[in-house]
Amino acid sequence: MSFDDIIDFHGTHSNKWDMMEQNTGVPSAEGLAMWVADMDFRPPEGMIRAVTDAAGRGLFTYFGDLGEYEASIVWWMKTRHSWDVAPAEIMTTHGIVNAVSMALEAYTRPGDGVILMTPVYHAFARVIRANDRRLVECPLSLKDGMYAMDFDTWEGMMTGDERMLILCSPHNPGGRVWTRDELRAVADFARRHDLILVSDEIHHDLVYPGRKHLPMPVAAPEVRDRTVVMSATSKTFNVAGMHCGNVIIHNPALRSAYQKRLSQLSISPNSMSLRMTPALYSPEGAAWVDALCVYLDNNHRIFVDGINAIPGLRAQPMQGTYLAWVDFAGTGMTREEFSARVAQGAKIAANSGPAFGAGGETFLRFNLGTSRALVEEAVARMRHAFRDLQ
Amino acid sequence: MSFDDIIDFHGTHSNKWDMMEQNTGVPSAEGLAMWVADMDFRPPEGMIRAVTDAAGRGLFTYFGDLGEYEASIVWWMKTRHSWDVAPAEIMTTHGIVNAVSMALEAYTRPGDGVILMTPVYHAFARVIRANDRRLVECPLSLKDGMYAMDFDTWEGMMTGDERMLILCSPHNPGGRVWTRDELRAVADFARRHDLILVSDEIHHDLVYPGRKHLPMPVAAPEVRDRTVVMSATSKTFNVAGMHCGNVIIHNPALRSAYQKRLSQLSISPNSMSLRMTPALYSPEGAAWVDALCVYLDNNHRIFVDGINAIPGLRAQPMQGTYLAWVDFAGTGMTREEFSARVAQGAKIAANSGPAFGAGGETFLRFNLGTSRALVEEAVARMRHAFRDLQ
Ligand SMILES: Cc1ncc(COP(=O)(O)O)c(C=O)c1O
Ligand SMILES: Cc1ncc(COP(=O)(O)O)c(C=O)c1O
Repeated sequence: MSFDDIIDFHGTHSNKWDMMEQNTGVPSAEGLAMWVADMDFRPPEGMIRAVTDAAGRGLFTYFGDLGEYEASIVWWMKTRHSWDVAPAEIMTTHGIVNAVSMALEAYTRPGDGVILMTPVYHAFARVIRANDRRLVECPLSLKDGMYAMDFDTWEGMMTGDERMLILCSPHNPGGRVWTRDELRAVADFARRHDLILVSDEIHHDLVYPGRKHLPMPVAAPEVRDRTVVMSATSKTFNVAGMHCGNVIIHNPALRSAYQKRLSQLSISPNSMSLRMTPALYSPEGAAWVDALCVYLDNNHRIFVDGINAIPGLRAQPMQGTYLAWVDFAGTGMTREEFSARVAQGAKIAANSGPAFGAGGETFLRFNLGTSRALVEEAVARMRHAFRDLQ
Repeated sequence: MSFDDIIDFHGTHSNKWDMMEQNTGVPSAEGLAMWVADMDFRPPEGMIRAVTDAAGRGLFTYFGDLGEYEASIVWWMKTRHSWDVAPAEIMTTHGIVNAVSMALEAYTRPGDGVILMTPVYHAFARVIRANDRRLVECPLSLKDGMYAMDFDTWEGMMTGDERMLILCSPHNPGGRVWTRDELRAVADFARRHDLILVSDEIHHDLVYPGRKHLPMPVAAPEVRDRTVVMSATSKTFNVAGMHCGNVIIHNPALRSAYQKRLSQLSISPNSMSLRMTPALYSPEGAAWVDALCVYLDNNHRIFVDGINAIPGLRAQPMQGTYLAWVDFAGTGMTREEFSARVAQGAKIAANSGPAFGAGGETFLRFNLGTSRALVEEAVARMRHAFRDLQ
């Protein structure tokens, strides 16, 4: 497996590549798609074989027996994340944004406050608003150029009607892998304000060598009972189109409230995802991810070093994920101008910062889940697009 | 394509075959799985190629551009069902029970009455109850041994708090393909009582030669504005494990209420189903279904004739679907006894009648979506299990 050989996604119904021109204006022919959060890599062969084998045999009917599926999730959480999960604690949703929506419906009421640490993954704010909950944006602060939590400020923002905190761990778009101390501080905060703690750990596997992701129930066992963890094979193995996610809840009362929503909505996993998961959460999958993380770490160094060599641009150092967060404030340009230089000048499709909430105004997010060659090309194009600053 | 060559689903994670013993007590080795509603046939080759091709190329990322997908649905409804649908009127859900749940949430409130014509597909009652709506069971009557609607009786049952009627068209488990007159009578009833009319047409393609399914908006254009049609490739092509369904709504206000639920819940189709649909809703798919309907019609004759030759047993004549409905009332046996004779005597797993609601007490449902040889074997086993009556 070489991550240098990426898939050419042009004309494959890839949202990232084929809808780029329509959505971002960056021309399809020369553009570099660095927006939507999926990668350009071919997923593990064992999973591909599982799918082609099942499809070739014509197996598309209702799936029975989740034992092997659940066991593979238990195994993965134990061996990769030192986390003990019981099969009965695992629920399956139609992806993680869907999972977050159902958590909002299960645990909060219209008008309740739901806290995000912004900037953060944009869909959280969308579903909070779509479900008529009150969005509470707690701004992350900067420490050593990276995002840090700022509980002193946040304490003063609480009004008492907050019911839930949605944590993004590791952090999209900051690339932070939160430390044990930080996670325990989140736990304290959740206890102090009696919050349900939704920990979206979809990026849990994508941490660079030397870093360690801690599942919230491992970092802070004292909040196991108020914690709802979300994870998936989707970001790790580049299979997000399959819309399959997991919700893991230790507390039986919270779990049965969640299960009630699943059953009211009649949501259960599609058979192909059930076949894919054990092939991904496997020793082969583990080796693939280990190699992937080394590769992504290298991409991130090339990108961050390259961007930071351009005066006025500042890429945050990353500890995980493949999503780089670049601040253009130092250019003194308006958002229109720096965005146009990236989109029309460099012909790179990136995500617009404001979508990630307060604090994102002067940023763009770049997706590094691609070949080193493409990352190098992106850096070269950025250097050229901002050459007058150098 | 020969429908005589069925897939051996043992050990493939088939719910119908592999979970039979655990769920119905019928032994896996010798049992005939005639319960869960999927078929034993291999789906169309073009679709299998579409899946193995996409999987082989590693395409599992977020899907973009639903144009081809929607066009194939529009084409199918037009050419197969003489129904004009616009792409913007099509929404995609996580299967049809999920679609019905969201319709309940979008159009009714807890406590509202929701009408079913029973006996009918069991999951409707489950989601009505799970969502705290009031289940209103309007019993179907019998005419020429087949189900008929009985509006005179139903009129007197209305209390004024009914908000929705869920029609199963064609009818599971009765195998009726409702006529234009019947559908117009449903439409009148819906207008008279100001009901939202959910027409679950998932079995629309499975009608025997000489019969014609009429989509509700075609049969009764006067209720287009209150009608929500549900359909899917799932039952037609034996791909129900993929959990993909369509909701088609002509009325813009009803549609936007539905779209709001989809967006609140963040439900959008999985990429594999989006690739499968155009391969199924195609000329190849149409030829496959035509051949399938001839085959199922023949299966149904063998089964109905065979069963009706057993004194005390009465299979309803079918006009479509692959689900046969057999009344054991004439045996004079308790439900325990006739059920045991079928499960332990004939070693056939069938669905228990009471699950389908009022009127199903003395029935079992048998799935004929399998080879003629298996249907013949089932008839022989039934003859033997009830040989003392002959
Ligand atoms: C933190 C986070 N959660 C959820 C998602 C999306 O998950 P899904 O596609 O399963 O809804 C993403 C995608 O980028 C993400 O970054
Ligand atoms: C009338 C009817 N609606 C819905 C379904 C199930 O649909 P899905 O699996 O997409 O939820 C069935 C399955 O038998 C059915 O007969």
